Amino acid sequence: MAPAQEQLEGEQIVASNEDGANCIEKSRVTVIGSGNWGSVAAKLIASNTLKLDSFHDEVRMWVYEEVLPSGNKLTNVINETNENVKYLPGIKLGKNVVADPDLENAVKDATMLVFVTPHQFMDAICKRLVGKIKPDVEAISLIKGMEVKMEGPCMISSLISDQLGINCCVLMGANIANEIAVEKFSEATVGFRENKEVAERWVLLFSSPYFQVTAVQDVEGVELCGTLKNIVAIAAGLVDGLEMGNNTKAAIMRIGLREMRAFSKLMFSSVRDSTFFESCGVADLITTCMGGRNRKVAEAFAKNQGKRSFDELEAELLQGQKLQGVSTAKEVYAVLSNRGWLEMFPLFTTVHEICVGRLPPTAIVEYSEHKPKCCLA
Amino acid sequence: MAPAQEQLEGEQIVASNEDGANCIEKSRVTVIGSGNWGSVAAKLIASNTLKLDSFHDEVRMWVYEEVLPSGNKLTNVINETNENVKYLPGIKLGKNVVADPDLENAVKDATMLVFVTPHQFMDAICKRLVGKIKPDVEAISLIKGMEVKMEGPCMISSLISDQLGINCCVLMGANIANEIAVEKFSEATVGFRENKEVAERWVLLFSSPYFQVTAVQDVEGVELCGTLKNIVAIAAGLVDGLEMGNNTKAAIMRIGLREMRAFSKLMFSSVRDSTFFESCGVADLITTCMGGRNRKVAEAFAKNQGKRSFDELEAELLQGQKLQGVSTAKEVYAVLSNRGWLEMFPLFTTVHEICVGRLPPTAIVEYSEHKPKCCLA
Repeated sequence: MAPAQEQLEGEQIVASNEDGANCIEKSRVTVIGSGNWGSVAAKLIASNTLKLDSFHDEVRMWVYEEVLPSGNKLTNVINETNENVKYLPGIKLGKNVVADPDLENAVKDATMLVFVTPHQFMDAICKRLVGKIKPDVEAISLIKGMEVKMEGPCMISSLISDQLGINCCVLMGANIANEIAVEKFSEATVGFRENKEVAERWVLLFSSPYFQVTAVQDVEGVELCGTLKNIVAIAAGLVDGLEMGNNTKAAIMRIGLREMRAFSKLMFSSVRDSTFFESCGVADLITTCMGGRNRKVAEAFAKNQGKRSFDELEAELLQGQKLQGVSTAKEVYAVLSNRGWLEMFPLFTTVHEICVGRLPPTAIVEYSEHKPKCCLA
Repeated sequence: MAPAQEQLEGEQIVASNEDGANCIEKSRVTVIGSGNWGSVAAKLIASNTLKLDSFHDEVRMWVYEEVLPSGNKLTNVINETNENVKYLPGIKLGKNVVADPDLENAVKDATMLVFVTPHQFMDAICKRLVGKIKPDVEAISLIKGMEVKMEGPCMISSLISDQLGINCCVLMGANIANEIAVEKFSEATVGFRENKEVAERWVLLFSSPYFQVTAVQDVEGVELCGTLKNIVAIAAGLVDGLEMGNNTKAAIMRIGLREMRAFSKLMFSSVRDSTFFESCGVADLITTCMGGRNRKVAEAFAKNQGKRSFDELEAELLQGQKLQGVSTAKEVYAVLSNRGWLEMFPLFTTVHEICVGRLPPTAIVEYSEHKPKCCLA
């Protein structure tokens, strides 16, 4: 039997070969975003698509085009050197990663889309993608951080699903991009809504011996972890700045994890306790409270007795990077206040009140006199 | 109505006063042990018995008598200066703490016994207490660390209950004694078996604004946390010594917490997942993996590529203190091996194999290629 080939609107069906095997349609992966974490994600994926028969080798990566100081375009340099010299220098992405500055072109043949851009760009990106993607495409968001509005958190996975009419999973975890880039052991959690087979396909695409991925049926729980942990990191940084020691810091992290869980469950009744034992929960919290920019700026804030603002310290310490904990704390505070839940969340509440100067940094270890009336076990 | 008084075998019933109030029998507390943590426990308790009407002010503390370099007896110095100059210098215990070198005398009137000695002394202490305590006395163990025998873990709470025929709770948590001594904010968990009122009484006795205590109905889960965390601390120390970074360390701690949970549940079906979110679980694990002697010695072991033994490094680094993680790992390994569970516990297993030199320290981040077949979610 001769191999059959079909081309339907850019959709490539890989036909059976002469042995009658390989009748499966191969997946085509496009990574939307090419920053530090996006580049590492492309590297992880590209090493797997080479090994796995059910994926096309090529991984397309949409790159927001920049002209480098050398005068060369970033996409050209990536495609020639196989390195993202700007955002992940020194790391080979894999020869099968193709940088593409044209968003529409990058996505048109994809059956699996990996979103990994700063969260504030996602609304505009989704608008540009309407009508440009294949209808049955599967998506996953690696984007941590979201706005929490009065009516509830603006999940990036929901934004993608709603605007594009496609299913969207999330992948979160203790994932410092530069450590994974040099293949240090790490873990991650995929959150999925209903389709377990799809989740398993994402797990397959990302997993490696040094990057172990587990799927849990809890999109909202997994995604909220990636945002709420930043409030806890502010608290942990304050404890560091006050030099309260490991004991107090561990207690504050534990209370923070409890409030992350409680808040998530109040927002979405489907959220599972067990999610917070996964990499997206306790492990990402630990990483973020040990290193990370929220912790760092909060430490400086406490050391200065709150006399220099978060904005000022952020500008000085982060060289243009933004910290998210302060704005997330503010947004979550508004929700808690509006619903009469402030007393159930002493840590979240106190972090915000410290950030805006209503309470001194020391309040982070004093709030506890008001025992939380939280309804959760 | 004149106050009535009754003395029955040393049992003091506090009778109604002239207003007919205070008919309740007041509790008398004795702390058995006077090391670093025992002294801090006595301080916490003594400040509460002064405030709470349902407790006698006096807190008796059994002190293993020592003659100090000054020639004075430790008990005399404690009673004169109100300080345990040897094990908690510089901290006032409270004038109502009475050091007593006579174990039998110290316990004879007590209705609440607080056990806080090194675990290897408990068998002998229990034997000495048989027939010397009031029959309805309540006990609590603050002792972390236990032997894990082939037939199962030797819970200190069970040893106390079985040998003395009394109920026994446990109190565990992220509790570095010297930090609590200076009133830095911390938390703890009381584990109880059935009687919630008794657990609440222990919570009342230990709680303060800087020491927040929560009760959970899970003696075994709480108590096992205090022992199993030491295996994870060895793993965390190895990661530190290998300079693998925060990401890997967080992953290893998370996997460790999962194995603590899985092992505890296999040993006792009553163990609850939620216990591991409490101070005794995640918070104590964080503290122990950030500081602590197990972590410290394991870090040195990895830095020396396993060429210097744990025994040697322990002697050099801990000045006579003992580390428990190595022996606990060995004991747990024997149980896992015996029951055919080694593959379900890659972290516990690997820690032991590294400790005994069968695997190199780097194996701690390589084991993960063998995905655990753990039955737990």
